[in-house]
Amino acid sequence: MILYSYWRSTTSYRVRAALNLKRVAYSQRTVDLVTGDQRAPDYAALNPGKGVPTLQLDDGTILTQSLAIIDFLDATYPDPPMLSGDPAARARQLAVALTVATDIHPVNNLRVVGQLKSRFNATADDAQDWMCHWMAEGFAAIEDLLPDTTHEPASGATQTFAFGDTPDLADLCITAQVYNAHRWGVDLTPYPKIARIEAACLAIPEIQAAAPENQPDAPR
Amino acid sequence: MILYSYWRSTTSYRVRAALNLKRVAYSQRTVDLVTGDQRAPDYAALNPGKGVPTLQLDDGTILTQSLAIIDFLDATYPDPPMLSGDPAARARQLAVALTVATDIHPVNNLRVVGQLKSRFNATADDAQDWMCHWMAEGFAAIEDLLPDTTHEPASGATQTFAFGDTPDLADLCITAQVYNAHRWGVDLTPYPKIARIEAACLAIPEIQAAAPENQPDAPR
Repeated sequence: MILYSYWRSTTSYRVRAALNLKRVAYSQRTVDLVTGDQRAPDYAALNPGKGVPTLQLDDGTILTQSLAIIDFLDATYPDPPMLSGDPAARARQLAVALTVATDIHPVNNLRVVGQLKSRFNATADDAQDWMCHWMAEGFAAIEDLLPDTTHEPASGATQTFAFGDTPDLADLCITAQVYNAHRWGVDLTPYPKIARIEAACLAIPEIQAAAPENQPDAPR
Repeated sequence: MILYSYWRSTTSYRVRAALNLKRVAYSQRTVDLVTGDQRAPDYAALNPGKGVPTLQLDDGTILTQSLAIIDFLDATYPDPPMLSGDPAARARQLAVALTVATDIHPVNNLRVVGQLKSRFNATADDAQDWMCHWMAEGFAAIEDLLPDTTHEPASGATQTFAFGDTPDLADLCITAQVYNAHRWGVDLTPYPKIARIEAACLAIPEIQAAAPENQPDAPR
């Protein structure tokens, strides 16, 4: 399969990590969001939302929206699972993932920041402050949504990730967003569970291999 | 169960419609987003994201994030399903739902518009133009993501909704977002599939009963 993606896109990062953890073979094609590749007619025909990622399956099926793609991968390549089989546990994992995917990421998207600049003459400092504001709000919410065991495991417990001993969708969304947090200088000290999850995820080779700096289109 | 919600919240509207279609009994408690109820400490303890909706189950379990709540309801009250059992079909439904839930709604959220006003002195006209911009972009993408049969059913076909003969998660997200589009004066003429889906959904009593103007906390 072919993943249309961009090295620095955090939604691409989520999907690369899921593909790697599930050991699904794929090749990447770069969609350079900075030069506007996503608005080229050929690409917009694949992905009408003009974003990344897009996953093209071997039978030609086109999938868009990172969480929809990971939902598909979880159904078709169930090992390891990105979401629990227990409905309430799954809803808690999804709530954390969606806090990143709806409350933080979209408001900080390149196209939104572009509109802040063109409509309101936002400066680079304004844009940075805007992005850090939404990350701080969202990270504080996630810190409260995560079980306390992530922060201080009960004696003998091995839980390292958001909701268990293996990374799930919540961990992938958090880790990708924290990449962006580092980029914009967000202090993670108030969010110890998030910082711990990122460290645990980056110690996993499959997730490390999905990180922006390790992509073929990253600057050398 | 108890749904903490607000009449005009489109994410609350999605969950009310799913609960009604599945004939799940619930009572509503108002969280007035305009007066800031969502930031009250008691409510923020339930919902750290300080948003609506929040669903409290009879056993006390708290669920947040509308799409996570609907995922839970689909697992525990499967009839009628909000998503297909076929992974690829389900991914297409989710892609449309997520285009509303990530590309349109979060950027137009009350709190985002509030920040535009406080940071950039956005006027009421600026805010309206901002909201209409993201709805136009997102609706155009959705119009392309929806199958053509929604627009012109093949002879003899009965498909009325986004992906079939019954409303699914994509239909609920679209219909709730279109409520907001009407509120802000978005012309739906360029989006005939979306307009058709909204009309079909509003003709269903369970969805009509979930509409903002039919909530107990709506102004009379």
